[in-house]
Amino acid sequence: MKYDVKKVHVFRIPEGSEMLSFINDYAERKGIRMGLVFAIGSLKNPRIGYFIEEEEKYLTISLKGSYELLSAQGNISLKDNKPFAHVHVILGDKEGRAYGGHLIEAEVFVAEVAVVELSGNEPLKRDFTLKGLSLWSEVA
Amino acid sequence: MKYDVKKVHVFRIPEGSEMLSFINDYAERKGIRMGLVFAIGSLKNPRIGYFIEEEEKYLTISLKGSYELLSAQGNISLKDNKPFAHVHVILGDKEGRAYGGHLIEAEVFVAEVAVVELSGNEPLKRDFTLKGLSLWSEVA
Amino acid sequence: MKYDVKKVHVFRIPEGSEMLSFINDYAERKGIRMGLVFAIGSLKNPRIGYFIEEEEKYLTISLKGSYELLSAQGNISLKDNKPFAHVHVILGDKEGRAYGGHLIEAEVFVAEVAVVELSGNEPLKRDFTLKGLSLWSEVA
Repeated sequence: MKYDVKKVHVFRIPEGSEMLSFINDYAERKGIRMGLVFAIGSLKNPRIGYFIEEEEKYLTISLKGSYELLSAQGNISLKDNKPFAHVHVILGDKEGRAYGGHLIEAEVFVAEVAVVELSGNEPLKRDFTLKGLSLWSEVA
Repeated sequence: MKYDVKKVHVFRIPEGSEMLSFINDYAERKGIRMGLVFAIGSLKNPRIGYFIEEEEKYLTISLKGSYELLSAQGNISLKDNKPFAHVHVILGDKEGRAYGGHLIEAEVFVAEVAVVELSGNEPLKRDFTLKGLSLWSEVA
Repeated sequence: MKYDVKKVHVFRIPEGSEMLSFINDYAERKGIRMGLVFAIGSLKNPRIGYFIEEEEKYLTISLKGSYELLSAQGNISLKDNKPFAHVHVILGDKEGRAYGGHLIEAEVFVAEVAVVELSGNEPLKRDFTLKGLSLWSEVA
């Protein structure tokens, strides 16, 4: 589906906030229904998921301590008619090693976020279920 | 070179597709000649490359099993007058460790892709060769 | 804060350049005051930082040799009224393992860069200090 860029929102999430819920709340407050999400910064005690297809569920990986947020990448689309952020993160420890997964939750020390808000006639909806995952319909 | 955003294509690659060829085919079908590529999802048995400058070729790394697609980042430009996607991927295993390289091929379980299609007067062409790599000309 | 996309700059940094200073110089030459930064490629001897909150400073990690640049993500905003790039990088070695941190400096072998230049009424400024870091004010 094809969209236009409506606006690019750039902001810093306040220290101590939970990252994923902050992005979801931001989208709801600003009326963002579709978009792309990017971020860098520094996070604490991130919980990330690895999807196990056979079990149709996420395994949760709990990392302890502080990590550089090397990349957050994802999107905002509609789930049950509400904006829903799906974000994957990559984290760096103090030896420079990288870790990552599906963002479940993380405490923000610093998060510099860009949300590229999209507009268009066709809503981007999570209305298809595959092995327990709520997905968009496939490309036509 | 400076471009405008023409459209932002957002789509899910069907399960079982090969990721890189799907993106190239998508670009060709939609007439996309220049763009930026982003994706997250979950991939199987990815093959990734590490470029060895002295040997002027890619070493291929074959990963087995399922990985979170933590980041795909890249671009579409013209090579031999056809759209050509150059994509680097970062992958997470079930312990949360991250791996990555130049995307050679991977089977898609889920891939949520955004292609930011660009337009402009100057075509972005891979018409310069450096140590076996097909590159854009340097910035002016 | 909300911005519009002014232009998307796509270019290759010449081999042998230092990546971060090249991006800063590019922004200054082109009059880019706010933007998003993305890149992939291949880098040599990257020096990356891990922020230690308690000590209010970056620990420097010096990697030796050549790495795939799997992701560079970041932004350009104003610091002391000059464009200032803040970029995090993720690097891959020849076993496919990923490393990353805050980009301090790196020698470019190949860097394919996109700078999404933003325009808007409210300047994006690093005018707030938190534990030694120069940050944007928090989101309203």
